[in-house]
Amino acid sequence: MTAYTATVTVRLKRGVLDPEAETTRRALERLGFELAGLRSADRFDIDLEAEDADEAADRAEEMAERLLANPTIHDYEVAVAEK
Amino acid sequence: MTAYTATVTVRLKRGVLDPEAETTRRALERLGFELAGLRSADRFDIDLEAEDADEAADRAEEMAERLLANPTIHDYEVAVAEK
Repeated sequence: MTAYTATVTVRLKRGVLDPEAETTRRALERLGFELAGLRSADRFDIDLEAEDADEAADRAEEMAERLLANPTIHDYEVAVAEK
Repeated sequence: MTAYTATVTVRLKRGVLDPEAETTRRALERLGFELAGLRSADRFDIDLEAEDADEAADRAEEMAERLLANPTIHDYEVAVAEK
């Protein structure tokens, strides 16, 4: 078994309103920053033991499907690195 | 001016309690997943126009310092890519 860190990034699908990001964007603009857009995402770094990187990615993907992301409104991506 | 996307990742400093991550970790374990640890972070993808990548990174770093991160409890990192 090898120790891996799986990074799961969960973001809202295009077209889903993101009031938190909109608020952050406006607050930055009020501070004088110029920006063309802002999107927010949740990132989870998960340490796990697996036989290989594929198994680690499969398990992280299942975690995303079952808990970390809501497939109705979220897209997610999984990246795996040896720890 | 070139269009860049600056990615700011904001995470709690080591030693700062993260009850949200702890709750997520326990929920995953209740679902039968085995994991050695879980850390959560906020990620902001910021679209902005700048003369070059260094200027884009500097501005994103200033946004992190002034609004996106709380330096008492957060570390952050900035990565810039041409859009």
